[in-house]
Amino acid sequence: PSTTAQHPPLISAFLNSGSNYTISNYLRHLTLHPHLAGTPPSSAVVDYVKTHFESFHLQTHVTDYSVLLSYHLHSSLTAHFSNTTAAVPLPLTEPGLDSDSEVVKPYHAYSPSGSAYGKAVYVYHGREEDYRALASAGVDVKGCVAVAKRGGGMSRNAVVAKAAEKGVLAVVMYTDNNGGGVERGTVLDGVGDPMTPGWAATGGDVERLGVEDSEVLKRFPTVASLPISAETAALILESLEGARVTHLWKDVDLVGKLDRVGPGPTFLNFTYQGENKMATIQNVFAVIRGSEEPDRFVVLGNHRDAWTYGAVDPNSGTAALIDIARRYSLMMRMGWSPQRTIFLCSWDAEEFGMIGSTEWVEQNLANLGSKAVAYINVDCAVQGPGFFAGTTPQLDDILVEVTKKVTDPDFSDSTLFEKWRTSSEVPMIQRLSDVFSDFAPFLHHAGVPSIDLYYGKDFPVYHTAFDSYDWMVKYGDPFFHRHVAVASVWGLLGLRLADDPIIPFNYLSYALQLQNHTDSLYKLLEGDDVSLHPITSTIQELEDAAKQVEDEIKKMREEESEGRVSVMKRRILNDRLMLAERGFLDSDGIKGRQWFKHLVYGPASESKLGFFPGVADAIYESKEGKKQQAMIQHEIWRVARAIQRAAAALKGQLN
Amino acid sequence: PSTTAQHPPLISAFLNSGSNYTISNYLRHLTLHPHLAGTPPSSAVVDYVKTHFESFHLQTHVTDYSVLLSYHLHSSLTAHFSNTTAAVPLPLTEPGLDSDSEVVKPYHAYSPSGSAYGKAVYVYHGREEDYRALASAGVDVKGCVAVAKRGGGMSRNAVVAKAAEKGVLAVVMYTDNNGGGVERGTVLDGVGDPMTPGWAATGGDVERLGVEDSEVLKRFPTVASLPISAETAALILESLEGARVTHLWKDVDLVGKLDRVGPGPTFLNFTYQGENKMATIQNVFAVIRGSEEPDRFVVLGNHRDAWTYGAVDPNSGTAALIDIARRYSLMMRMGWSPQRTIFLCSWDAEEFGMIGSTEWVEQNLANLGSKAVAYINVDCAVQGPGFFAGTTPQLDDILVEVTKKVTDPDFSDSTLFEKWRTSSEVPMIQRLSDVFSDFAPFLHHAGVPSIDLYYGKDFPVYHTAFDSYDWMVKYGDPFFHRHVAVASVWGLLGLRLADDPIIPFNYLSYALQLQNHTDSLYKLLEGDDVSLHPITSTIQELEDAAKQVEDEIKKMREEESEGRVSVMKRRILNDRLMLAERGFLDSDGIKGRQWFKHLVYGPASESKLGFFPGVADAIYESKEGKKQQAMIQHEIWRVARAIQRAAAALKGQLN
Ligand SMILES: [Ca+2]
Ligand SMILES: [Ca+2]
Ligand SMILES: [Zn+2]
Ligand SMILES: [Zn+2]
Ligand SMILES: [Zn+2]
Ligand SMILES: [Zn+2]
Repeated sequence: PSTTAQHPPLISAFLNSGSNYTISNYLRHLTLHPHLAGTPPSSAVVDYVKTHFESFHLQTHVTDYSVLLSYHLHSSLTAHFSNTTAAVPLPLTEPGLDSDSEVVKPYHAYSPSGSAYGKAVYVYHGREEDYRALASAGVDVKGCVAVAKRGGGMSRNAVVAKAAEKGVLAVVMYTDNNGGGVERGTVLDGVGDPMTPGWAATGGDVERLGVEDSEVLKRFPTVASLPISAETAALILESLEGARVTHLWKDVDLVGKLDRVGPGPTFLNFTYQGENKMATIQNVFAVIRGSEEPDRFVVLGNHRDAWTYGAVDPNSGTAALIDIARRYSLMMRMGWSPQRTIFLCSWDAEEFGMIGSTEWVEQNLANLGSKAVAYINVDCAVQGPGFFAGTTPQLDDILVEVTKKVTDPDFSDSTLFEKWRTSSEVPMIQRLSDVFSDFAPFLHHAGVPSIDLYYGKDFPVYHTAFDSYDWMVKYGDPFFHRHVAVASVWGLLGLRLADDPIIPFNYLSYALQLQNHTDSLYKLLEGDDVSLHPITSTIQELEDAAKQVEDEIKKMREEESEGRVSVMKRRILNDRLMLAERGFLDSDGIKGRQWFKHLVYGPASESKLGFFPGVADAIYESKEGKKQQAMIQHEIWRVARAIQRAAAALKGQLN
Repeated sequence: PSTTAQHPPLISAFLNSGSNYTISNYLRHLTLHPHLAGTPPSSAVVDYVKTHFESFHLQTHVTDYSVLLSYHLHSSLTAHFSNTTAAVPLPLTEPGLDSDSEVVKPYHAYSPSGSAYGKAVYVYHGREEDYRALASAGVDVKGCVAVAKRGGGMSRNAVVAKAAEKGVLAVVMYTDNNGGGVERGTVLDGVGDPMTPGWAATGGDVERLGVEDSEVLKRFPTVASLPISAETAALILESLEGARVTHLWKDVDLVGKLDRVGPGPTFLNFTYQGENKMATIQNVFAVIRGSEEPDRFVVLGNHRDAWTYGAVDPNSGTAALIDIARRYSLMMRMGWSPQRTIFLCSWDAEEFGMIGSTEWVEQNLANLGSKAVAYINVDCAVQGPGFFAGTTPQLDDILVEVTKKVTDPDFSDSTLFEKWRTSSEVPMIQRLSDVFSDFAPFLHHAGVPSIDLYYGKDFPVYHTAFDSYDWMVKYGDPFFHRHVAVASVWGLLGLRLADDPIIPFNYLSYALQLQNHTDSLYKLLEGDDVSLHPITSTIQELEDAAKQVEDEIKKMREEESEGRVSVMKRRILNDRLMLAERGFLDSDGIKGRQWFKHLVYGPASESKLGFFPGVADAIYESKEGKKQQAMIQHEIWRVARAIQRAAAALKGQLN
């Protein structure tokens, strides 16, 4: 058996065996029925993925977890407009969705059940600054039912939590440009099963916290909420009188260009009844064991559960994953065996809060921490045109390299890289601070270098009943070439990470990116009495270590070409490359959310910083009250020490 | 170059080159003057160790830290006996120690400065149960100056903290059988520099918390204390009247067989004036780079700083360490090069709270966590006759094997193992939960498998002015054969751990020991409404993994004898063996003392359990008030998950 590095024609075999017809067929079967996590129809999709992995003769297994999921039982919303006496029932589902539809009614998973009656008030994105604007305009939101518009970097949970803090009784949320659909979603804070924070919810004998435990309670919103369509929102918002505050909300694009925010005179009568219950979820795996280093893991993952049919979210990715399995299997018949072990993972219950991937990461933390090379995530593989990617920065180079090998799906005379680049001078690579897909547990909890890939963005039917195979064929990817392209980039990244004799990580990119982050932070903190010197000096240490490694790699490549490199020497270098990212983890984690251990990338409260979440939180809090410069400085020190640990791991030597 | 495994005669060379004369000479020079950490005379001892390492042509370096140390300025204690009018000054130093002695006056490092005037009261060991006995006898300790006797598993800090909680104004402590000496010591809680909890206090640009930070404050006692001699204690205790409580204190052995505990009628007038100040401390290292796996570390360590001359504590160990360096150097000239890298470490400021070793471990956490094979500690190498050892249980076998290769120092026709065994049916190996030497940061913070070795125990001149070279020659080790024996065991352990192709760890011993611990816990919890099933079932997982590894090792040895084992395959197995102990670490650590990450071995409050510190704390707290069975059960789950992580790391596979 040989690796792709030893026998490069295997790479061509991989690239040439992509098939749009096959992928479209996978997608059609995956999306025949809605398959919400924990519901009976989801088993059929488990079987579909499993059966395909097995049919490719890949070593296949399933891991089960018993977790707390949350389902819709009953919901209603009526309006009492000032110009009519009768209450007007407002639609809560998509048009054409009758009561015996197999699609679940729009709801917010983990919303508390509850009723509320109060004046409607518009709170825009529901950020602190929005409530400040409302207060300046004399608007009192206490006792009201809030109408919020999704956006502004606010998660659903953040919107509801902030609203509760302000005395709002219940929240309805709408999404612009949702094509008449209603955006379902979770309002749980954080990630993973709420009953088992930090450990795996494996079946049987496992500790589960009580629902009254403070660790559990803090993840649930305290006021009820429901999603509504933009059209339903317009019905309410058109009827509002009271203050004008649009000068602060420049991007408000309400149907009808309204600018009165209430409260009232319209009253809303809100009811939501839900049910939280234990359910079994299932992750499906295909494993290709590494021939030389079976104990080094390259992990490719996509979630499988969907709010409705899931043609975009997430099964465009699932179809691509199965296609990779098919292509890898083909290569195996040609004699391929990877140097390192490859895991293909199909996660469950991502929509409820990355639960399937998180439980698996929690279960395997010890081994992932010491042995995982990288995690490559694809969620919505295809939402429309245009390639997008997020990475931890040491993976920038290999991502660019790989996109140069893949044909652009929309311009067959060009590489994906060329078209990607034309959209900006250098390809825009995002960073992975947000918690919006399954890379979160890998990167933010376990410190595994990660990539997230997708075609198109902001697709209109997100989490609605209209996310179907038909939509994909009509709008998303009529020829399924984009699906093939994502599968090719994804699978090729897997091959390079599993087969390159020296792991293709470049930490100079990381040092450079950290310096850019620090420059942004410097601008933001101008005038503050804090010093960024601790960070800049440890970035220098990381840069020095990265340069040293680069020299060592060059030398090793020379020796390799002369056949003089021992496998041990290469392994020792690879260990340093693999483990450097772990240095960014801090056992104390982010203050108040200590499950999040990564101090460079991770979620922050209402912050637009996009990095250094602990620093971002400290800045946000200090703006809320007394300037807590000391707290900001302390968080800066913590980041500096995290960078220093990464540098030390990359150097690999004891002081 | 060859390893000792490849060329066994090197082992004989090591064993045969021990020299009692040489070691005695080292000890004599090391103990010419007192060398308290941070004081000028300590530099001479740094130079002595460094110069010797260099003279053996070993790669030598020094690491500096700036830490908060604590020194004596002024102290006085006078008694107002009921039968005299004049205040009687009580001696606070050893007899014969004049005011210009180079030995520091007895004091408690980090005691607050303060004066107190109050009735004397005897509190025995100062445990909760002792105060309960006093209360039952109607004794009110509030406003008193307490006299406490060291022992009962109470650290100095615990005695003072408990006394403060009970309303005591100041504490004087004595030690039985201290030969007229006074026991100096630290009253700081926890380990490491108090200003840099969790990170290294390297010189220059480093975050240091303020003295008012709660993380700093919680480590300092709030009432002042001083050590006194048993003779001074007797003067006070003989004068007490009031309640009798000796029926509860069966082992009280006061001079004069007194049994009245006060309070009063004697009044004590107490004054202590100390100074906490930043000082530079220095660790000295000799490094022997591994030929095949330079990135795997076997660490041998001993502290160098002493309260006085330090002939027993710690320089009997320092002399042994230098002798190992000499012998290793000799082997190198014979062509030896270890497979893995060996570090010989001479720590500073252990007496103030394991500060030198802790700062180094904090500085190197990322690399120690992923690359340290084991830490072997020797503090007081020789206190008298009889071999003693503590280990993490996977090291039991190799320790026993090594003691079979070393001649007993007191019976030259017998091995050390045979004499060690005769003291009990199987050799008694202790576990390392207590925080009394430099293994604490390695094991309790970084999860590195550890060993602690010594000859003799409970030596009478502990931390007194009489711990001198003369004492060692007269009582501790007149012929210095015990020194040689400790150096041989210690150095041979280093050789086996660095050179054995397969790391000599046996995790079946660990599983067995954990089961014994669980059995003890079961007895203690009888009648309680908690289940130990979570722990027993994960011990089974560890045992299964251990058996599987044992089979793999057997098979690998067979293949090896046929020359069929790849270095990669062996490295993969060794990684599992090396990393399994890390599984016992928990990022949340022990509740309230989260720097301590190890959930099997670590310090607990006033507990006699000696393992599972989190469970021990929960039991202790629940006895204090309402039965917090739920808290105990939660801690049991945490231990169970820690054991499961260790088992998973040993298996080395992802679920
Ligand atoms: Ca969990
Ligand atoms: Ca420190
Ligand atoms: Zn998704
Ligand atoms: Zn989604
Ligand atoms: Zn000592
Ligand atoms: Zn000591």
